[in-house]
Amino acid sequence: MGLGPGKKEYMTGRALAVIAEAEIVLGHSTYLEPIKSLLEGKQVISSSMGKEVDRASQAIDLAKTHKVAIVSGGDAGIYGMASIVLEVLEHDGAEIEVEVVPGVTAATAAASLLGSPLSGDYATLSLSDLLTPLEVIEHRLDTIFSVGIPVVLYNPKSRGRPHNFAIAVSHARHHLAGTTPVAIVKNALREGEQTIITTLEEIEDHESEIDMHSVVIIGGTESRIWRRGDDVKGIITPRGYHKKYVY
Amino acid sequence: MGLGPGKKEYMTGRALAVIAEAEIVLGHSTYLEPIKSLLEGKQVISSSMGKEVDRASQAIDLAKTHKVAIVSGGDAGIYGMASIVLEVLEHDGAEIEVEVVPGVTAATAAASLLGSPLSGDYATLSLSDLLTPLEVIEHRLDTIFSVGIPVVLYNPKSRGRPHNFAIAVSHARHHLAGTTPVAIVKNALREGEQTIITTLEEIEDHESEIDMHSVVIIGGTESRIWRRGDDVKGIITPRGYHKKYVY
Repeated sequence: MGLGPGKKEYMTGRALAVIAEAEIVLGHSTYLEPIKSLLEGKQVISSSMGKEVDRASQAIDLAKTHKVAIVSGGDAGIYGMASIVLEVLEHDGAEIEVEVVPGVTAATAAASLLGSPLSGDYATLSLSDLLTPLEVIEHRLDTIFSVGIPVVLYNPKSRGRPHNFAIAVSHARHHLAGTTPVAIVKNALREGEQTIITTLEEIEDHESEIDMHSVVIIGGTESRIWRRGDDVKGIITPRGYHKKYVY
Repeated sequence: MGLGPGKKEYMTGRALAVIAEAEIVLGHSTYLEPIKSLLEGKQVISSSMGKEVDRASQAIDLAKTHKVAIVSGGDAGIYGMASIVLEVLEHDGAEIEVEVVPGVTAATAAASLLGSPLSGDYATLSLSDLLTPLEVIEHRLDTIFSVGIPVVLYNPKSRGRPHNFAIAVSHARHHLAGTTPVAIVKNALREGEQTIITTLEEIEDHESEIDMHSVVIIGGTESRIWRRGDDVKGIITPRGYHKKYVY
């Protein structure tokens, strides 16, 4: 199940109901901490980052005899636990009933803080090379930046891969103007929220502010900074109404 | 604000609170109908599809003197009203406080019914050529299918563009095996829900079942059908744990 960005108020009613019904809740401690008031009287199995396969196996074993919820931040089907739980279940062969509960995904949570940077066609790409070889990631980056749609970068930087973000920026620069809007969004819609709005040619000045709790949105060819007077309010990617209508 | 897929239980707490606080609620009648119990005592301005610019202008005018909520299905920032409202506001120049409220987006709502067809990197592309020229859409399709990530097609078919879906499939066939999983998801997580799971080489047999309330998910090179015995349960796109771990 997907918890959404983190704060309880961004969970869906269905997610709240599933937590309420569960006898056992498994998940990363970062995601369980903000919802601990919902976990009273339940068995809670929290784990640290990594160990996803172990957590999935444990959830499947427990689900043979109990109602189990295994939680992901954002949407469980986007860089979350849904796929590995289903793979382990398939391998195990147990006939357990499964429901995948969607949540507000990190890309749109981050986008909502910026105005409307995505708006239509977009892609999400992870810079983590733990499970995907770097050459595959680079090919995806280069190809997708070439069509000029906004791109949401997950795992832009973390221990063990400090250079992947600079590589991604260099691919973006091959295809997009230096003035293309870029935003760093840390902890969208949860404790520690912060947004930085800049451009592709100036993103290097802010690189040290990117951490593993950030996503980075790189605008497309139509994206522009949204200003009110001298204030930078966010990013707008128009959908094209301005070409058809006068307003 | 984004209402999520349609059923009230998939709205976030924040979306419920914003509706509760609003004096005036604007939106397409399709989205307002399932939440009409939340609208008692409010001024409700429902409109039919199209007329997005008029609806945005009306919302901005009303927001100068009232608390106004303008609703979109799914997430407001993905093929929703956020961008046009902000464009109209920017043009108007009024100093109105604005909050973009995210919701569970149609892509992940549909994906949740299939197991885990997206799982990681993916793209969403609309086949509507009302605001984007068909040659731009075709270039995006061809380029993005070439990298082999799952793609969610919005507006796969509607009056006035019956052939765009067949064009999209032909681009997919240039790059992906005929056995690539494909799903049609109609009315995900709302009244009239239906899923059809097939493959790229057999999707043409199901094309007549695609309507304007559907999204179509075309798997990537790693995606496969998820079976239990002889039953087709959904689609899994593995994230790659199977290459690193034994389970």
